[in-house]
Amino acid sequence: MNIQGTAFRTIWLSTDGAAVEVIDQTRLPHAFVIRRIGTARAMAEAIADMVVRGAPLIGAAAAYGVWLAMRDDPSDAALDAVYAALLATRPTAVNLRWALDTVDAALTVLAPEHRGRAARMLADGIAEEDVSQNRALGDNGLPLLQAVAERKRDARTGGDDRGVVNVLTHCNAGWLATVDWGTALAPVYAAHDAGLPVHVWVDETRPRNQGAALTAWELGQHGVPHTVIADNAGGHLMQEGRVDLVLVGTDRVAANGDVANKIGTYLKALAAHDCGVPFYVAAPGPSIDWTLAAGVGAIPIEERAAAEVREVTGRTTAGDIRTVTILPADTPVANPAFDVTPARLVTAFITERGVATPAELPALYPEHDGQADEALAEG
Amino acid sequence: MNIQGTAFRTIWLSTDGAAVEVIDQTRLPHAFVIRRIGTARAMAEAIADMVVRGAPLIGAAAAYGVWLAMRDDPSDAALDAVYAALLATRPTAVNLRWALDTVDAALTVLAPEHRGRAARMLADGIAEEDVSQNRALGDNGLPLLQAVAERKRDARTGGDDRGVVNVLTHCNAGWLATVDWGTALAPVYAAHDAGLPVHVWVDETRPRNQGAALTAWELGQHGVPHTVIADNAGGHLMQEGRVDLVLVGTDRVAANGDVANKIGTYLKALAAHDCGVPFYVAAPGPSIDWTLAAGVGAIPIEERAAAEVREVTGRTTAGDIRTVTILPADTPVANPAFDVTPARLVTAFITERGVATPAELPALYPEHDGQADEALAEG
Repeated sequence: MNIQGTAFRTIWLSTDGAAVEVIDQTRLPHAFVIRRIGTARAMAEAIADMVVRGAPLIGAAAAYGVWLAMRDDPSDAALDAVYAALLATRPTAVNLRWALDTVDAALTVLAPEHRGRAARMLADGIAEEDVSQNRALGDNGLPLLQAVAERKRDARTGGDDRGVVNVLTHCNAGWLATVDWGTALAPVYAAHDAGLPVHVWVDETRPRNQGAALTAWELGQHGVPHTVIADNAGGHLMQEGRVDLVLVGTDRVAANGDVANKIGTYLKALAAHDCGVPFYVAAPGPSIDWTLAAGVGAIPIEERAAAEVREVTGRTTAGDIRTVTILPADTPVANPAFDVTPARLVTAFITERGVATPAELPALYPEHDGQADEALAEG
Repeated sequence: MNIQGTAFRTIWLSTDGAAVEVIDQTRLPHAFVIRRIGTARAMAEAIADMVVRGAPLIGAAAAYGVWLAMRDDPSDAALDAVYAALLATRPTAVNLRWALDTVDAALTVLAPEHRGRAARMLADGIAEEDVSQNRALGDNGLPLLQAVAERKRDARTGGDDRGVVNVLTHCNAGWLATVDWGTALAPVYAAHDAGLPVHVWVDETRPRNQGAALTAWELGQHGVPHTVIADNAGGHLMQEGRVDLVLVGTDRVAANGDVANKIGTYLKALAAHDCGVPFYVAAPGPSIDWTLAAGVGAIPIEERAAAEVREVTGRTTAGDIRTVTILPADTPVANPAFDVTPARLVTAFITERGVATPAELPALYPEHDGQADEALAEG
């Protein structure tokens, strides 16, 4: 996607071919800084410090981390060491383990002298696969937005939005969380690039403000019209008919279609259901956990640090980045990071294989049929 | 209620009888500062600058403002001037106009030499009426919390909450918004003071953070156990059975029971309904607008400044109060300040006259029967 008119990905090989470059996401939205990463150790630090974040991007970054290690020392010992070091950076990220296992399995069987070049090809492949998967999500979601635009044009309501498709999204499931295109925002970029008038309501997404910091920034850079709102505002906007559809990403989908995603997603799904607004979940195949019958009450919810609620970081008028405390001293805080939206509130999933209701989802992935049947029978 | 073990109200006469003193709410939660207000002009500034805020407190503060003016100059011209100056401070606050009209009507018919003393008595009366009305809300709401505590004790679930009644609240409808006791928090204080184990989940209430700044502070000072959460977290907590009831205040109730309150209230009402959690609205009689048939789509929703979403103010580790921007420069923002919760999501209203479902509410206020019938027939 574009940054100030220039196409970027979140991770790429440096022009001299000697290092990997990434957008430093800890500096957004206040500064656009490219970070050059020349060693596996530096890549592990970049993942741990959330210089790169978002499950798909972390997977690609880890694969490039293995390449950097193998380039310098392709021994079995070095391979084992880099695998362990990278896996330890973000223990709960499913894509991280998947990417590392994929690269490790392929490299182990190669003679050490071939590992450097192979590792780079594998990392490139993982990155490209993410891009093409997300592009497919965009292509599959685009007709949903086109249908809204056509309906609004037909209605010729004469309202002030002139057929604009109003999408509400929560958190950041945009291109910054992936190598390119994003998941939930892929259909938005596809629509915008196809000339469809689209506008995004961006939940600020407390407590980490990924909507305010990342989604607003990436939409702004690519030129997609958007408006940031407090997380509290979405229900009211839906009630007033100012949201045409909700589009969110997911961390994990159960076999029955229950959706784990950033805390607060469930509230937006309830409002969408109450107001007759379609609620879509962009779910790449790997995010569906076919071994899990149902998600509500079953998916463990990470409790994160109180400081995320207690403190807010931003830019002062002088341009400094400062952190301030918004609570009385010693106030107890709870900070569940995710919630689970019941499948009954999900209109459809947008996947790289097409659009499907929760009930239709297993038919898109027949290779998991046995698993899904088993899980659903148990559940 | 208590501050560090000492009983306080939000507004009182100074011990020398020559001025009014208030808690400076713009300094909370980071500093507890008492502000002495000796002139009507200073009172108008205190209301406009939100040194005092909350509809019931503003009403009492305005009445004391009239007293300060009359003490210095009890002429008709001075009475007209102070009425206009105070009314202009917060044009949308219904209680402000009601308090000013009450005081003005009583003073106009008096000879100027009697106005000073009468104005003070009227202001005292308005403050006392608020306190007794809120105490009645607390008394009427208390049995709802007692019933939960008994049910939990009977169930002897052996859970880790040992019969604690978990209340979720949004924004600040506590004693800081009134002269004492609060509205939504009145039953909580009544329960706590009666020895009932009660714990409050406090929504931080973006964008102005009244929950984080005010509700957490006042509960902490009075010793009521509480936990601050991001506004996004409430649905998840209800889904997990960790909320026994929701208690909120209101800015305006329509005759059919639709409830206008701080933005985000509607989302919590939806979650409560979905999870089978009772949703109570503390509604003093004056907050019910019997001329309005229905609230959804009818109550005008104030759009407030973008800076409230764009910026966050808090305390640095050095102890300075600083404001930081959390958005990319020039990001568009929308900031609707209230939403309307449909009556179908309201379990009951807690009023100074008792507890009533939306359908039962008109029977509690027979003096408005004609108005309500007319409004509902039109609506």
